[in-house]
Amino acid sequence: MKKKLLMKKLRLYVITDRTLKPEIESVKAALEGGATAIQLRIKNASTKEMFEIGKKIRELTEECNALYVVNDRLDVALATEADGVHLGSNDLPVSVAKRIAPDLIVGASTNNLEAALKAEADGADYLGVGSVFPTSTKRDAKVIGLENFKNIKRSVRIPVIAIGGIDHGNVLEVLKAGADGIAVISAVMAAEDVRDATAKFRKILDSFFGNNSY
Amino acid sequence: MKKKLLMKKLRLYVITDRTLKPEIESVKAALEGGATAIQLRIKNASTKEMFEIGKKIRELTEECNALYVVNDRLDVALATEADGVHLGSNDLPVSVAKRIAPDLIVGASTNNLEAALKAEADGADYLGVGSVFPTSTKRDAKVIGLENFKNIKRSVRIPVIAIGGIDHGNVLEVLKAGADGIAVISAVMAAEDVRDATAKFRKILDSFFGNNSY
Repeated sequence: MKKKLLMKKLRLYVITDRTLKPEIESVKAALEGGATAIQLRIKNASTKEMFEIGKKIRELTEECNALYVVNDRLDVALATEADGVHLGSNDLPVSVAKRIAPDLIVGASTNNLEAALKAEADGADYLGVGSVFPTSTKRDAKVIGLENFKNIKRSVRIPVIAIGGIDHGNVLEVLKAGADGIAVISAVMAAEDVRDATAKFRKILDSFFGNNSY
Repeated sequence: MKKKLLMKKLRLYVITDRTLKPEIESVKAALEGGATAIQLRIKNASTKEMFEIGKKIRELTEECNALYVVNDRLDVALATEADGVHLGSNDLPVSVAKRIAPDLIVGASTNNLEAALKAEADGADYLGVGSVFPTSTKRDAKVIGLENFKNIKRSVRIPVIAIGGIDHGNVLEVLKAGADGIAVISAVMAAEDVRDATAKFRKILDSFFGNNSY
């Protein structure tokens, strides 16, 4: 996928959280609301269950021409024909994932410049950088703030999406800080209406970037 | 790997269990005792930790010319250059693993004839069949007994290893029932001396099969 297209697909990146909503139902709603990418993030489930859910999400995202990425599990990503895998610091190294699956988009979570530069050098296709704000999803996550985010963003060439505590009230600040996209969990998954919460983000993104097709 | 060589490599198949012993140390001891195959089986650890331990087990098994198989996690198997992956009924389907990694040995756990025939048809390279006896490792495992084991063994062409409650006292019964090898966890991992417990199994296997090189 060309960098420009990938960047557009990363604009509204919604991450599943079964402690807030069941995956299939919430992904459907998020896609209806205009999510451009879905990350399947499941812990404490069997591989078989991840595989079954992943296959369904592959179908749903394909129908909407949205990106489908699997958190951590490269096996589930390959088995469900995902577009990519997203790796954190407790997952496989980026370079190893790239060697095993050269055709997958590999994203990496980073919260500092050194790790961001290393991930880019190791072949990451995009970065998830944060937490830009305090977040209820990962209470122990390091909050780096918008200045550090900006610094990382301008130091790498690959697309950078912001994550951590982003809501409808602060998303514009994040976009002004240079984010190519935003990753959201609780702002969408904890909302009463996932579709509406997503659509509200999409509207802000479209008016910021200009609603050129993506 | 040719079927005859694989069969020999599956003779003494030792599975890790961190609730009994740390992986690296116990694998070293099992290999010194004559294990022909090691299965890395870890639950509740980060992928990074599995990767680090797996790389070390890859080195140790290579030094001893032993087989190295990863339970469940095809990503960890690929990342650590394992010889194979072992799949249970809650893991990826055998056919999917074969599609993703055609060069890996794929083993499948089965406890009935129908599942055994399906696994073979789907491309499994060997079967782990049991529990042949009651076992403390999986208290909820179905105990199939030696007659059912025999029936499955003679119904498939691929190598079949017996698993579940095998100890130094009953291993000969299992071999007489036609097992190409035995898989052990607690009989080795719960022993005070892992190396000695493994060596004792190896001696019985060697005298049963004849000590032709493997």
